[in-house]
Amino acid sequence: MASPFLGEMLGTMTLIVLGDGVVAGALLKRSKGEAMGWIGITAGWAFATLAGVFVANAAGSADAHINPAVTIGAAFHTGDYSKLATYLPAQFLGAFLGAAIVWLHYLPHWAATPEKDLKLAVFCTGPAIRDARANMISEVVATFVLVFTIAALVTSTVGSSGGFPRGVAPYLVAMLVWGIGLSLGGTTGYAINPARDLGPRLAHAVLPIAGKGSSDWGYALIPVAGPAVGAILAGLFVRMLGM
Amino acid sequence: MASPFLGEMLGTMTLIVLGDGVVAGALLKRSKGEAMGWIGITAGWAFATLAGVFVANAAGSADAHINPAVTIGAAFHTGDYSKLATYLPAQFLGAFLGAAIVWLHYLPHWAATPEKDLKLAVFCTGPAIRDARANMISEVVATFVLVFTIAALVTSTVGSSGGFPRGVAPYLVAMLVWGIGLSLGGTTGYAINPARDLGPRLAHAVLPIAGKGSSDWGYALIPVAGPAVGAILAGLFVRMLGM
Amino acid sequence: MASPFLGEMLGTMTLIVLGDGVVAGALLKRSKGEAMGWIGITAGWAFATLAGVFVANAAGSADAHINPAVTIGAAFHTGDYSKLATYLPAQFLGAFLGAAIVWLHYLPHWAATPEKDLKLAVFCTGPAIRDARANMISEVVATFVLVFTIAALVTSTVGSSGGFPRGVAPYLVAMLVWGIGLSLGGTTGYAINPARDLGPRLAHAVLPIAGKGSSDWGYALIPVAGPAVGAILAGLFVRMLGM
Amino acid sequence: MASPFLGEMLGTMTLIVLGDGVVAGALLKRSKGEAMGWIGITAGWAFATLAGVFVANAAGSADAHINPAVTIGAAFHTGDYSKLATYLPAQFLGAFLGAAIVWLHYLPHWAATPEKDLKLAVFCTGPAIRDARANMISEVVATFVLVFTIAALVTSTVGSSGGFPRGVAPYLVAMLVWGIGLSLGGTTGYAINPARDLGPRLAHAVLPIAGKGSSDWGYALIPVAGPAVGAILAGLFVRMLGM
Repeated sequence: MASPFLGEMLGTMTLIVLGDGVVAGALLKRSKGEAMGWIGITAGWAFATLAGVFVANAAGSADAHINPAVTIGAAFHTGDYSKLATYLPAQFLGAFLGAAIVWLHYLPHWAATPEKDLKLAVFCTGPAIRDARANMISEVVATFVLVFTIAALVTSTVGSSGGFPRGVAPYLVAMLVWGIGLSLGGTTGYAINPARDLGPRLAHAVLPIAGKGSSDWGYALIPVAGPAVGAILAGLFVRMLGM
Repeated sequence: MASPFLGEMLGTMTLIVLGDGVVAGALLKRSKGEAMGWIGITAGWAFATLAGVFVANAAGSADAHINPAVTIGAAFHTGDYSKLATYLPAQFLGAFLGAAIVWLHYLPHWAATPEKDLKLAVFCTGPAIRDARANMISEVVATFVLVFTIAALVTSTVGSSGGFPRGVAPYLVAMLVWGIGLSLGGTTGYAINPARDLGPRLAHAVLPIAGKGSSDWGYALIPVAGPAVGAILAGLFVRMLGM
Repeated sequence: MASPFLGEMLGTMTLIVLGDGVVAGALLKRSKGEAMGWIGITAGWAFATLAGVFVANAAGSADAHINPAVTIGAAFHTGDYSKLATYLPAQFLGAFLGAAIVWLHYLPHWAATPEKDLKLAVFCTGPAIRDARANMISEVVATFVLVFTIAALVTSTVGSSGGFPRGVAPYLVAMLVWGIGLSLGGTTGYAINPARDLGPRLAHAVLPIAGKGSSDWGYALIPVAGPAVGAILAGLFVRMLGM
Repeated sequence: MASPFLGEMLGTMTLIVLGDGVVAGALLKRSKGEAMGWIGITAGWAFATLAGVFVANAAGSADAHINPAVTIGAAFHTGDYSKLATYLPAQFLGAFLGAAIVWLHYLPHWAATPEKDLKLAVFCTGPAIRDARANMISEVVATFVLVFTIAALVTSTVGSSGGFPRGVAPYLVAMLVWGIGLSLGGTTGYAINPARDLGPRLAHAVLPIAGKGSSDWGYALIPVAGPAVGAILAGLFVRMLGM
């Protein structure tokens, strides 16, 4: 049954189960993890990345991108755009499903949490200071750093031959994600992954979440477009450097 | 003297000494680790897993499961149920012994802690919001993620040939456990291991803990049945995927 | 395009984007990472080091020093001073550019933060207790530990043949940096890298940061001279030990 | 110049510079790391272990014990007691020197900290609840776990052939130390190393620390004897298991 589509879908689903899960654990009322703070949230997303990459690879995606930005960056780096049509739908679908599982996992906590904005924050990102231009810049910068440093890491550890980096590379990528969250996440909550934001935002819109509010569609374009632009720029830069 | 029984017993004992130990360090009064928070508790359980896996392997269990859910998941994955009769009793016994050592290690702190619920929480899990159906779902989901991602990780790093993954795999498993705790532990305290909950709960019931209260047997079924169901589903899913 | 100059420049730039970035995330008002504390700041600098080392190597610097102190220490260790003229300008330039990117990334947060000292602290270090002699000692000690333990680590893991340590060595260096921050950073904020301090301080002076104050040039010599002295002593000590 | 004596001395010195350093960073007034909490202190000791092991190995001790308990445990495991006479004096001397460097590094912070007990806590351990029997049990248990899990880890990762485990083993040992601190350190502050406690306690007694109080010699026996007993029991147990 394993296939690249299934791998990207299950890997991204795992990313979101653990990624949106850690935000739920930190923000929903009466969670044992309440008030774990930014170090806990960013650590959770790092380990979510680790788990997602292994699931993606084991379920059939040797690339294990689990992020349209990484797929887009790789395409602009190599000039081969053929994977976009398979990987991106799988990633968005997986992210949607992952968010639904988080909703189910934290079932009694939605009614226990009166704040509508905290409930939305479990699913998708929102800016600390709403300013479309600045928020767009933040997502471009953070995604550029993500895609560029992953490319550097893969080049440095397993060469540029591609394929799934066995050994420690997935762990090192997870640590980069932890670092990007700590260092660059303070402004917009670091979507740095269009599927991570849009899939769960759609889940927030359609799931029967107790006492939910707006899905903030007015902001939804930035965490999709920003990472896409950052990824394209990083892919072209990697190509230019000949890495 | 080394044997699979001894390995699983000592490994699970080590898991609980450090796992229940970190909860004691975080919750008991006058502990130097008081108020270390959720990040500390979940980190402690991760390093407990790391230590337990190495002890289990060195003492004779090449599988180093130290968790009935992992043994059950592997059995439903491979169709070989022969290890259950040896591993499960060893794991429950080890967990009981580990809890007794934690009681001994923190000896003067039990009388110093008036809250009976905090003392029970050192030994076994309890739900943030008591709701049998939702708590069961949480344990099924979290254990499914544990067993499925471990299978993916082993497949990705050492292939599916089985045996003890030397190198970094035990560390990566520990990091997954950290992630599951951060992301999915907020609801029920993530038993995700029937022995981890039942063995110490029994120890709580029989040990002469100063000022102890109820062992909350009314909840005891869920952290055993939930992980078992989650493990079976994950084992069957791994089999279906052909991982 | 890859070259040692480009590698050291882009690597140090990455170090500062994530390093100054984590301080911005922790100190600037309305950042989601506000109050992440010392554990978060020191973790962020560790992952910044990890990312910077991989970028430096992939972009053409097999040494991946990204720190004049490391370059100076290696020169005094080996007696080969030929790299200083290329690496040091690249490192200072990269640090300046990295700080400018952090300013851009956190654009709306500068006006939101009234405290001038917090804004300066994003860019460069300052002493907890201002005392030139003691601050100089702190920077010498911390940099000595950095350069000496890196040399020990490289000797222990990849031998003394030099070149870029593939595998886990860059990660272990990052963990050393985390440790030095936690243990020795409390006094002066651990510059331990002349470029990390001087480049961003210059950026603070020339960038149009909303509501900025003094760049504290009176302190600027110590985080340059202290690391240089510590690195020379460590390089000579490594040489004397024959490591 | 490298030799086993020098290796153990410099390695233990590095352990204490970073280990006592992190306590100084967390407890001394006006330190930037004040209030980093138990997670920060235990992380700092873990990275201190990592650094110390690499320094010890690079400076001539292939065993890199940096802890009399590990040396004693290995002696009772193998039946070869010949290293004790060289390693133990080197470890105590290194620990004393390391504490002196921490005093120097945090020079202006001693006068800034009025609490005499906090200043002593930078140097050596003290019990959360003073009870000689219980404190002794805690040190025996925690050191048994340390020595036994290190033996299990070395057996599992590099076999029982001895010598310095290159690769990731030193890092895994550091993570075990983090876990032991989180889980078992709450009672006595986990000396688990006679040199770590006695060397710095002596340094506290003889150094001209501003406003220092008693060195609490009444407690000094327990963090030496407890780890020694725990190490002997663990060494004999490892031997019995045939690991």
